[in-house]
This record gives sequence, C-alpha cells and structure tokens, in this order.
Amino acid sequence: MLGVQAWAAVPINEPIQPIQPAKITDPAKVELGKQLWFDPRLSKSGFISCNSCHNLSMGGSDNLPTSIGHNWHQGPINSPTVLNSSLNVVQFWDGRAKTLKEQAGGPIANPGEMGFTHNLASDVVRSIPQYRDSFKAVYGDDTVSIDHITDALAAFEETLVTPNAPFDRWLKGEKDAISPAAVKGYELFKNTGCIACHNGEAVGGASMQKMGMIEPYVTKNPSEGVAGLTGKDTDRMLFKVPTLRNVELTYPYFHDGAYWNLDEAVDVMARLQLGRKLSQEEVGQIVAFLKTLTGDQPSFMLPQLPPSSAHTPHPVPFGQ
Amino acid sequence: MLGVQAWAAVPINEPIQPIQPAKITDPAKVELGKQLWFDPRLSKSGFISCNSCHNLSMGGSDNLPTSIGHNWHQGPINSPTVLNSSLNVVQFWDGRAKTLKEQAGGPIANPGEMGFTHNLASDVVRSIPQYRDSFKAVYGDDTVSIDHITDALAAFEETLVTPNAPFDRWLKGEKDAISPAAVKGYELFKNTGCIACHNGEAVGGASMQKMGMIEPYVTKNPSEGVAGLTGKDTDRMLFKVPTLRNVELTYPYFHDGAYWNLDEAVDVMARLQLGRKLSQEEVGQIVAFLKTLTGDQPSFMLPQLPPSSAHTPHPVPFGQ
Repeated sequence: MLGVQAWAAVPINEPIQPIQPAKITDPAKVELGKQLWFDPRLSKSGFISCNSCHNLSMGGSDNLPTSIGHNWHQGPINSPTVLNSSLNVVQFWDGRAKTLKEQAGGPIANPGEMGFTHNLASDVVRSIPQYRDSFKAVYGDDTVSIDHITDALAAFEETLVTPNAPFDRWLKGEKDAISPAAVKGYELFKNTGCIACHNGEAVGGASMQKMGMIEPYVTKNPSEGVAGLTGKDTDRMLFKVPTLRNVELTYPYFHDGAYWNLDEAVDVMARLQLGRKLSQEEVGQIVAFLKTLTGDQPSFMLPQLPPSSAHTPHPVPFGQ
Repeated sequence: MLGVQAWAAVPINEPIQPIQPAKITDPAKVELGKQLWFDPRLSKSGFISCNSCHNLSMGGSDNLPTSIGHNWHQGPINSPTVLNSSLNVVQFWDGRAKTLKEQAGGPIANPGEMGFTHNLASDVVRSIPQYRDSFKAVYGDDTVSIDHITDALAAFEETLVTPNAPFDRWLKGEKDAISPAAVKGYELFKNTGCIACHNGEAVGGASMQKMGMIEPYVTKNPSEGVAGLTGKDTDRMLFKVPTLRNVELTYPYFHDGAYWNLDEAVDVMARLQLGRKLSQEEVGQIVAFLKTLTGDQPSFMLPQLPPSSAHTPHPVPFGQ
C-alpha cells in the first residue's frame, strides 16, 4: 500500500510522468560506450563522432536544420536529440530502427553521415589495445564486433535521461517549481489537445503521427516519413512524434528544422495538427510550460580516448 | 636556502624541467573560456568549435595529417596540440601569433577553418543572455568583443598544462617512475643532440628551427614556414619546434602530419636534423622515453552551453 510520501512522488492522474533517473547496472559498459560516443575514429574521416550531431553540450542535438556529414554532406533531416531517446518507442524520425542499438549502427555506415562501414569501424577499434581490454572486460572477449560496439553505445545512451526538470518537481508536489504562466500553459497544452501525442515520460516519442493533420505542412524538405520505407501513400508525412523534453535546447524544430523559435513552433503545431489558432498570450503560456521540461543535463568528466596503435588503420578525411 | 626536500623536487641540472600545474587566478574567466572553447557557434556553420581540431579527448589535437575546416576545406598544415601551448614562445607553426589570445582569433576568421568573422562571432555570443551575464561578471561589461572572447579562450588554454608525467616524477626523484629503457632513451636524447631544440618545460616550443638541417625534408606539403610570412629565402622551412609533451597522443607528426609512428618520426629527425642514423634499439629507447612525457590530461566536466535566443543569428552550414 502506498504511503502519503509515495503518493506525492507519483502523480498518477497526469498524462505526463516524471523522468526516472537512469539505473546503471553495468558501469564498465557505460564507460566504454561513452568513449565510443566521443570517438571520431568511428567515422571514415576520423573527424565525426556520435557527439558531432548529438552534442551533449547542446541538448543532445546539433542545433542545425539538418546535419553536416562526411565531406560536408547536407543531411536530409533534422538530427533528433539523443536525450531520453531510450524512451522512444522506435528510433529515427521514420521509426526504421526498433532499438537504440540498431539505431547506433546507422550513422556509422551512412555515406552522408560518418561515411564508414561496420567492418572498418570495428577494425579501427580492435586495433587499439586499451579498447580491446575494455571489450574483454565487458563482453568476455576482445574480438570487437559492431554488435558489441553498438551495444555499448546503446548502454551509454540509456543513461542520457534528464530527470528533475522543474515540471517534474511540480508534478511531484513542489508547487513553486514552475511559474503560474507555466501552469496555465500546461492546462492549455492539455485542453488544446497537444497532450494527445505529447504525453508520457518523454512528452512524445510514443507514437507515429501525420505531420499536417488538418492543414498540410509546407516545406522544401523532400522527406516523406514512413512512406519513404513502405512506399504507401497512407504513410506519407508519418513521423515519430518527437519528445518535448529539453525542447528549449533542441532548436530548430520539426523534421526539417525549419522553425527556430518555440513560439512559432507552437503556433504551427496548433494550426496544422489541431486546427486551432492560439492567441499570443496562449502561445506564451505554452512556451513557458515547455521551458519547464528542461531537466538535468548529462553530467560527467570529458572522456579521454585511448591512442591509436601502429596497427590502427588511418582515417581518410579527403579524397577516395 | 633550499632544504633537501626542495632540492629533490627541483632538478636544477637537467635540461628538461617538470611541468608546473596551472595556477587559476580567475576561475569565472576560465569557465567562460571553456564554454567558448566547446561552442561551435563561433563558426559560420555552427558545427566547428575550437575542440574540433584541438580535441581535449585526444591529446589536444585532431589526429589528422591536416585539419578539416569549413565546407570540408583541407587545411594546409597539421593542427598543433593545444596542451601546454601556453609554454610556447610563439603560436602557430610559423610563429605568426605572439600570444594565445592573438592565436585564438585566427581560426575563427580563417575561411578554411571556422569560416566566420570576428564581428559575426561576437554578434552570436552577444545575443545569448547567459553569455552576456558571464562577460558582465568577468569583464564588468557585456558588450562581448572579440577581444574579450579571445582573452577568455586564452585563459582557458592556460589551464591546459599536463603535469605529473612519469618523466616529471622521475625528474623529481621517483626513480621507478620510468623504465630502464626510458632512462637510456633520455640519455640518448641528450647525447644525440635532440635536446638542443627539445628542452625546457615543454620539451620544445621555445625556438624556431629549420626542418631539414642536414638533409632536406621531402614532403608534398607546400608550407614554407616563416618564409611564408617574410618572403625571405633564409626563412624557408623555419618552423616552431613542437613540444614533445604528450607526443604519444599527438600523431601524426611534423608540420605535414606525414608520419604516424613515433619510431619513424625519431628516425627521420635524427637523420635530417642531426645527421645520425640510429639503430632500431636506440630508436626504441628514445620512443620509450618520449612515452614518459604523457602527463595528466585536462580533467573537467563536459560543459553545458547556454541556448541561443530568438535574436541569435542562425548558423550558415551550407551555401552562401
């Protein structure tokens, strides 16, 4: 039976739930994954790491409309934040990866992102004695497969949750944690219908929805969402609903990164998805609420990477 | 009068001196400089930060022959480590900047590096309220000039010294801190003549010398060192002697980044600069010594960057 304390800590009647801190069961694996996360040697050029486009100093995003990849390739879609991505039902905007581990292999082998191959990336990591020791300690063997590399990356990513946002503290009963405007904004967020898609622990990430339900979304970006995978016309513009956690930090917004300001993004969403024209005051209140969703950012020492050995394949930044 | 303890701690008869830990007199300025160091908004693209080419997870270098800049521009010269750069007599390979502060302005405005301008970079930083608060606290005004930006960057860089290397502990009397092979390597390093240029606290960085004293250095890299500044034939191939601190981490070597392995680099230096052909054993001993120069790497929490405001100019990653 729940006591008063436990009841206060778990608001069962709200459609948004507080983020739970990460439970780290295998710290050695997380440390290994952290090093790999920051290691540009997973890319062909030796210049691009996971952190290049999911920058943990910048809300787990690159704050660009679409990302820069190998050879300055212009990416097709906005880089989603890695923060709280463990709470997403699927990964990528079109949901084409079921798990963080599956997702992690994508950019490494994408010619327009890290531009490498799984085999070559594994060769590089395997050539580094300190990495081999770490893989041996974590996985019991030092063969260093892409399977283990992406597993370690996923274990690190699972720690990148952002608990303790002002809104979560408010949910848990700390009534001064957010402003009266933010409280009004939350009520509006629920009453206007935003909550239908942006709910749960991640305030999103739980479903695929059509971008442009009521009015079509006008964009120069050719991405078609799930239809790009299935070819089905009914899947056109079907995208994963992004998390709104830390949304203050993850501009620019939408799959095309076309909107830089939260008030514009809220206005567009209300009109296109809900057929509602919000007043400036209402937009301001919802934005005040959204800004209370910024939680504790990842907090750790800058990792040191083990040096390459004489056997490490050299990066190929230019040509070829 | 020095007591025995003090004498043991200060080896006055060796041409290499231990690195002294950084004395931080203005921690707020250092923190501000650290944020700016990691902030890609100092570049036109919003993608390249100081840390991109002087990666503090990788010995303060990018471990590439020459760096990748704006629009994937191929840099003309190897990125020197930022570690212990405060000990250099001048900055850049050709010494064209007298101070760290002067150096820091270079890459920001170099079209092939960060591709920005001093005015635009200052505009971006000034548009961010949290940065304005920090500049106000550190400099007493929040106008945010390039002068203050580079001053803060230099203050952070001054903290990037790497004390406590095994060799330094050996110098201070800890006789087991380095292997017998490394001790032999140090004797060889002195007797062969390497020490003539690579001496002092930074084991280099104190003078300009001709690359290819005895035999010319064969390279496809067109850099001519100081002659590129003065146009004088006598300054051809005159470069700053690089520090050998953390040299194990700062491959590939020389101004063209043409050599990836320390044993090759030692062999080439001995032949070209000193006219000496070292045996494989001698090279191995010198390399064993060089690896004792790896000190404590920068150790701090990954910084969080303040978010842009509605007034922040947008990055321009593509086109224009």
